[in-house]
Amino acid sequence: MKPMTIALVQMTCGPSKKQNLEKAGQKIAEAARKGARLVCLQELHATPYFCQTEDPACFDFAEPISGPTMKFLCTAAKKTKTVLVGSLFERRSAGLYHNTAVVIEKTGKIAGIYRKMHLPDDPSYYEKYYFAPGDLGFTPIASSVGKLGVLVCWDQWYPEAARLMALNGADLLIYPTAIGWEPSDTAAEKKRQLLAWTTMQQSHAIANGLHVVSINRVGLEKSPEHATKTNKGIVFWGNSFIAGPQGEILARASDTKEDLVVTALDLNRTEKVRRAWPFLRDRRIDAYNGLLKRFGC
Amino acid sequence: MKPMTIALVQMTCGPSKKQNLEKAGQKIAEAARKGARLVCLQELHATPYFCQTEDPACFDFAEPISGPTMKFLCTAAKKTKTVLVGSLFERRSAGLYHNTAVVIEKTGKIAGIYRKMHLPDDPSYYEKYYFAPGDLGFTPIASSVGKLGVLVCWDQWYPEAARLMALNGADLLIYPTAIGWEPSDTAAEKKRQLLAWTTMQQSHAIANGLHVVSINRVGLEKSPEHATKTNKGIVFWGNSFIAGPQGEILARASDTKEDLVVTALDLNRTEKVRRAWPFLRDRRIDAYNGLLKRFGC
Repeated sequence: MKPMTIALVQMTCGPSKKQNLEKAGQKIAEAARKGARLVCLQELHATPYFCQTEDPACFDFAEPISGPTMKFLCTAAKKTKTVLVGSLFERRSAGLYHNTAVVIEKTGKIAGIYRKMHLPDDPSYYEKYYFAPGDLGFTPIASSVGKLGVLVCWDQWYPEAARLMALNGADLLIYPTAIGWEPSDTAAEKKRQLLAWTTMQQSHAIANGLHVVSINRVGLEKSPEHATKTNKGIVFWGNSFIAGPQGEILARASDTKEDLVVTALDLNRTEKVRRAWPFLRDRRIDAYNGLLKRFGC
Repeated sequence: MKPMTIALVQMTCGPSKKQNLEKAGQKIAEAARKGARLVCLQELHATPYFCQTEDPACFDFAEPISGPTMKFLCTAAKKTKTVLVGSLFERRSAGLYHNTAVVIEKTGKIAGIYRKMHLPDDPSYYEKYYFAPGDLGFTPIASSVGKLGVLVCWDQWYPEAARLMALNGADLLIYPTAIGWEPSDTAAEKKRQLLAWTTMQQSHAIANGLHVVSINRVGLEKSPEHATKTNKGIVFWGNSFIAGPQGEILARASDTKEDLVVTALDLNRTEKVRRAWPFLRDRRIDAYNGLLKRFGC
């Protein structure tokens, strides 16, 4: 297997879907010029991170998979001959929406979708209001650049999700993400959060012996409640990165600016690392029943 | 809950069980003088790491739980009024041995045992030859300093083990360990291995919102096959450490020398961190059946 060049598009998002998509399109073209065969966009890259508040009007941001956002990306994929990982606020039916990642083949055809399985609901991240839990399980999406284990943001805190993608044959894991700091947190707390986020995803690379890619948005997005509350919004922390199968950081983007990471991945490393660290061999599947419980006590 | 002072005893081991135990006894006494209420020893602290080769004579190192090693530690626990986590090459019956961790209450009574569930079998770590797989599951051991989620070495690469201990109510995770470098590996490879080992365990702290403690042995132990092979033995890499519930490193021991880490842990942090990062709330137990399979394809 030859090295596969991957690109991570880390960007800010404004209120205009059109402008966000045009920017993404320019970055995809730039990545292709730099040799990328796989280009990954961040979570909900076509819109602001509207989940900072619960507002019925925000459902207007949603589209079906056949809608204009994915049409735009399909055209971009075909034009640049790259495989794309995009993200969509998916309108599946009236009253039924998902946070969905879409893989588009370099021919412009949709290769498959993943609907976010683990949903947060925390102050400023009211995702359980907008999205129904994914119902497609943890199935990698086959593409011309490999089987892509696409997961989304909050999934990254769950070793179960990474393991299931690996057991289902993923060649690498890809996490479109939207995570940031609360501006009022202390510098020490911010540092711990960023380190925890990176560490957790590096651990998925190690436990499963594969590359892990995380694409985060960047920059401040003010809270719609700004005028009336002390909540100042979210400072998305960038730091999009690629980890190798021993968890080693291969590339990392800026923490404050838009960035385009283009890196050649040697996916053969999975074979080598798993021979040295054969963790899949020794799982105690006879003793894991408790993982299907909410709690043991 | 008041802070609980914990001690990690990181030491070298020689061929004499008596001398290894005496050294451990001195360290336990020193830890108690420094205020420790819980003292943790490394994996197989009473013997050399005999698993570097497959030799039937090494079964002579084994003892029942009622044998002299645990008698020694029970006396030490009672004398110092500390809870101890010890490790034993357990002889359960003729032809049936385990790699067993033992928790001893400060009264000198055995509080419970854990038999290593995940066993390695790699060059220089022939544990599947010596040990039968543990059959007690992932059950924390109740003690006067909390419910101790005791796991052993190779278990540390398995998010499943950490998760099950947390779901079963562990207050913290404790990994007695024996891991090191092959002397002929490159400096870059050694660095990646050490970082992967630490990262993996930090991730258990993060994913489960609790403290994680790892106690490793230190120093070169030559291979018994040294005279005839190129194998030079294992350089145990020390680096025993404590991570807080966000994965942050609170203390770390030397990478080359014996060391005694004594640190006060604020176990109340688990409540605070799990409120901010409620990962246990959102597990998709309806979609985790695949975790009970060896592989999905």
